[in-house]
Amino acid sequence: MITFTAYMIAEFHDYLRSRVELRDTDLMRISSHAVQMDLRRNQFLFSEGDVCRHKAFIVSGILRTFATRADGSEHILQFSQERTWAIDAESYDNQIPSRYNIAAVEQSQLLLWSKVDFDQLLSEIPALKSFAERLISRAIYNGRDRLLSALSASPEEKYNDFVRDYPSLIQRLPLRMIAAYLGISMKTLTRIRRAQISALK
Amino acid sequence: MITFTAYMIAEFHDYLRSRVELRDTDLMRISSHAVQMDLRRNQFLFSEGDVCRHKAFIVSGILRTFATRADGSEHILQFSQERTWAIDAESYDNQIPSRYNIAAVEQSQLLLWSKVDFDQLLSEIPALKSFAERLISRAIYNGRDRLLSALSASPEEKYNDFVRDYPSLIQRLPLRMIAAYLGISMKTLTRIRRAQISALK
Repeated sequence: MITFTAYMIAEFHDYLRSRVELRDTDLMRISSHAVQMDLRRNQFLFSEGDVCRHKAFIVSGILRTFATRADGSEHILQFSQERTWAIDAESYDNQIPSRYNIAAVEQSQLLLWSKVDFDQLLSEIPALKSFAERLISRAIYNGRDRLLSALSASPEEKYNDFVRDYPSLIQRLPLRMIAAYLGISMKTLTRIRRAQISALK
Repeated sequence: MITFTAYMIAEFHDYLRSRVELRDTDLMRISSHAVQMDLRRNQFLFSEGDVCRHKAFIVSGILRTFATRADGSEHILQFSQERTWAIDAESYDNQIPSRYNIAAVEQSQLLLWSKVDFDQLLSEIPALKSFAERLISRAIYNGRDRLLSALSASPEEKYNDFVRDYPSLIQRLPLRMIAAYLGISMKTLTRIRRAQISALK
């Protein structure tokens, strides 16, 4: 168990070191507040109506952020893979019930920070704060691109863009989740993939 | 001309005062860096390929942020009305060419700050900095809601949500822009509106 956590912390340090200039003491301080969490496939980090209490860093696995509509249909806003973060910002920032769910697509290992602890770290470590701001900015840019794609791209373009942007994800996701992410029907997705496969033959 | 600018500054002060606790000296310092700009209907603040050099506050009027696809179709990511800000964050933050356009829907009056000046103000005035962070957070929350709507809502739901969220905008926008914002065809939009009007009779 100790060894396992040590490996996760090492992964996290490696991730942070490659992106932010931090003193070793700061790095240790950040990870000393982290708690380990393992999720089984399909297990929830939190559900709609819960408060998103933690910032989650994904050491291994894939999480999906999704909403369910009254008709039971599932709509995936985001996949979060290794070395990225998963959070519902609105719920986390304001500690209010979330309108979304975050659950594991496959078995996943996470590091979690409570908001109190992470806020404290942000106020004490300016380099971490500016790194967090960069991540937030990138979330805005990506959100905008994804919205434009949802508004304007054809189903074929959506699928091709997804394959281009997430080549390593495509093998690991059930088809129904790809469809729920792209906002197209299973029937359309199957047709697109079949056409591409026969074009390759 | 002087009076006109004074009116715009007064509007801006009123906006800021109602949202942030600022000393009068800070308020004056912020507005002293603003430059006035008037846009005619359909005039561009900047076009795709330009760098978004300014943060723009809208005193009066409506701006739209949009992208055009290769087939010439226009897709509107956002409308920005009085007392909100218009910016392409990715282009502005990194001073790189934008992939979007921002143009006036109707005659509009703006206050502009260069990035250098605004960054300076942010670093000098902590209350302005935390207000800016709140605006950024809200942009993320709204972006997420808009994405979910684009992925999952029916054309009727999209239209009804828009009418509910922007009752004052609906009268001021050409139908083709509402369609380009909702990601539905003009034909579908006309059908929805006609059905609602006959239901009222």
